[in-house]
Amino acid sequence: MGERYSHTQTAAANAGAPTDAGALTVTEVRLTPILIADPPLLNTQGVHQPFTPRLIIEVVTADGTVGVGETYGDSRYLELAAPLGKALPGHAVSDLNGLFTLAEQVCGDPDDVSDSVDVGGLRGVQTADKLRLSVISGFEVACLDALGKILGLPVHTLLGGKVRDTVEYSAYLFYRWAHHPGADTPRDDWGAALDPAGVVAQARRFADTYGFASFKLKGGVFPPDEEIAAVRALAEEFPGRPLRLDPNGAWSVETSLRVAAELGDILEYLEDPASTTARMAEVAAGTEVPLATNMCVTTFPEIREAFATGAVQVVLSDHHYWGGLRNTRELAAICRTFGVGLSMHSNTHLGISLAAMTHVAATVPNLDYACDSHYPWQTDDVITSRHVFTDGRLTVSDAPGLGVELDRDALKVLHQRWLDDDGTMRDRDDAAAMRVADPGWQTPSVPRW
Amino acid sequence: MGERYSHTQTAAANAGAPTDAGALTVTEVRLTPILIADPPLLNTQGVHQPFTPRLIIEVVTADGTVGVGETYGDSRYLELAAPLGKALPGHAVSDLNGLFTLAEQVCGDPDDVSDSVDVGGLRGVQTADKLRLSVISGFEVACLDALGKILGLPVHTLLGGKVRDTVEYSAYLFYRWAHHPGADTPRDDWGAALDPAGVVAQARRFADTYGFASFKLKGGVFPPDEEIAAVRALAEEFPGRPLRLDPNGAWSVETSLRVAAELGDILEYLEDPASTTARMAEVAAGTEVPLATNMCVTTFPEIREAFATGAVQVVLSDHHYWGGLRNTRELAAICRTFGVGLSMHSNTHLGISLAAMTHVAATVPNLDYACDSHYPWQTDDVITSRHVFTDGRLTVSDAPGLGVELDRDALKVLHQRWLDDDGTMRDRDDAAAMRVADPGWQTPSVPRW
Repeated sequence: MGERYSHTQTAAANAGAPTDAGALTVTEVRLTPILIADPPLLNTQGVHQPFTPRLIIEVVTADGTVGVGETYGDSRYLELAAPLGKALPGHAVSDLNGLFTLAEQVCGDPDDVSDSVDVGGLRGVQTADKLRLSVISGFEVACLDALGKILGLPVHTLLGGKVRDTVEYSAYLFYRWAHHPGADTPRDDWGAALDPAGVVAQARRFADTYGFASFKLKGGVFPPDEEIAAVRALAEEFPGRPLRLDPNGAWSVETSLRVAAELGDILEYLEDPASTTARMAEVAAGTEVPLATNMCVTTFPEIREAFATGAVQVVLSDHHYWGGLRNTRELAAICRTFGVGLSMHSNTHLGISLAAMTHVAATVPNLDYACDSHYPWQTDDVITSRHVFTDGRLTVSDAPGLGVELDRDALKVLHQRWLDDDGTMRDRDDAAAMRVADPGWQTPSVPRW
Repeated sequence: MGERYSHTQTAAANAGAPTDAGALTVTEVRLTPILIADPPLLNTQGVHQPFTPRLIIEVVTADGTVGVGETYGDSRYLELAAPLGKALPGHAVSDLNGLFTLAEQVCGDPDDVSDSVDVGGLRGVQTADKLRLSVISGFEVACLDALGKILGLPVHTLLGGKVRDTVEYSAYLFYRWAHHPGADTPRDDWGAALDPAGVVAQARRFADTYGFASFKLKGGVFPPDEEIAAVRALAEEFPGRPLRLDPNGAWSVETSLRVAAELGDILEYLEDPASTTARMAEVAAGTEVPLATNMCVTTFPEIREAFATGAVQVVLSDHHYWGGLRNTRELAAICRTFGVGLSMHSNTHLGISLAAMTHVAATVPNLDYACDSHYPWQTDDVITSRHVFTDGRLTVSDAPGLGVELDRDALKVLHQRWLDDDGTMRDRDDAAAMRVADPGWQTPSVPRW
């Protein structure tokens, strides 16, 4: 508590007074890999592991300010974060453009990455550039948090100012088991959801607890007709509410078009029905249902083909993929210019990344849909006061920086879990997790249906 | 519209020190239209007037900080600036995204603007949106200047940090008369330049005085063969130096292709040879010479068609047109994403706008060419210490804000000139200026050759 209090005083004292340039200089970077509990959420690749890795980044400046960031924590990301963390001291937290140059200089390409899709397939193409950007994003957020604290300004102000006071999120529904296999796995009380009734019950709890007004179902788990039935059941339970279905590219063009035809009257958008931009373009040409993506457009170089072919109508930005909050704003400008919708994607994340998402989302005029967030599924966190959804929304913080405080005790516990792990959880692998329950499971080939 | 406008809001009485938000709050906006001397520079529409209007914008915050901005000063711009200046007090200088919302709310569409090209034709399409953005740009720069001064940070830091310490500019060569007609017109010692020898002599003086390494000739004034000869003469005088020719859309597709073929070996790019995106696309399809524009792509809505048809290879951004420095960075991101080059356009401007250009140019990684600037032609200024080009470059200021100081005495003199004007100079009209010397002159129809 004392630490946060001192930051607040520093910010108040500095407000309106010229900043000491030296105060902005990074003197230390702390990288803390952690493992966080994750429920048995199903997707087309398998199931979430009981624990998944994240990396917490702390950037300390000369005046003792600490800025925090968060990003993916798999080994490949840690390998890139280490040299960047070593190189950053001496640079200013305000030198955000320079962060990209620095990363290019010091982060060698990871050994085993070419233009491949990652093993889970769920994060789209996994080039060395994209991995580097995902690492930069955590540093950028930490620098923005520190800069905001030093200047006495919220992160949204550093991004030009909020254009809305709250940001709407969507309920992120998953088919899931009640529990992970094994005795030492984390538990929750959500129960299983493996059919339309289970999905509706889950949605009802989300709506009642958090006030979410729109619903996204992670699909690609069961044959399409079962998932169509689940979405129909949601439409009956929540008439008129925006609904989305995301099979993570599991379907053929033909199946995608059939689902679009059957659910066209109730879908707000269909997310990544087929994998690859070419297949998405084929689907888009055959349906009026908008197609969203966080798989075929996840980097700037992927935009041209997708926009030229009309393959996507909504880009779901993930500030980790895109290289941070400022790059996300640039993506928003591109979408605005080309008449493509924008919303935000989520992967398993904690409260630092949710705060970052909320700040940038508050500044983007063309935020066309409620954002995704896995956050309600996460029982662990590294901030002292968890975010609370009200009427499906988060209020944008006006406190200096991100407006979150690092919970060092929690961080220590989650880092110890990472240290104690035998290596099986340090890289997320949904297919491997599925094999614990189903030893014969193989990553399905695409299209699966 | 004959007065100098000042809009003041009394700061709320505050028993203690200013709050964080309070320090950033705008309390007063001062709008000062001025007339500045301009040499008899020729273009395809006519000739620059002896005096041309600019608008100087001062934004004062609760702590007494004054931020300065500059934009076009023609009547249409003043009509939009007045309500925005009246509405801004009470808002924070950091609320840059909100500036656009505010402008949309309070700036009605100017009476006589549809999707037309302005009378001069040189600023591209002149929609109500674009006029509003040009006005916003002056306010945005003033707000950034104030914000930087309050925070003790240079404007480039507010834009994410400079990626270069100096910004390169190009010599901007014009066909010109020695003097304007009439006894009371401003004079300079550059002499006439109406043939290849005159253009080369002008370029030599630019190179010797300022160190410019690249040269742009404003064309569209004489038949293409004469301008081809002038560019050839430049190439002989300055072998290997980047050369550009800009006839402001005066040529047909056939003429454009002929010039491109004849000068293809020495042109860095050909700027706006033909008017309209469709004609530019035809030219681009027939030549390897890159085509640059500040006429057919001057707003975000114009980008899609131009990029899809390959009509332009270089966009010359003008931060006034595009709505300020942050929008210019978004344009840069779009160009980067779509593999289109970027540089910066200039219209007659003073030292505030040159400082603003230099700050944003310093932060854009993909600044592919030396920027244009009319600045050496301007003998008037409203800053106390004029910018000095060294080796064709300006050093990026690290002082808080823009790093320029308003010269109030100069501002007063130039505003008095505006007040004393009978109205003939308050709206730039190059054709009207030409008619003073050539009463039969009409704005040439396009294509002229």
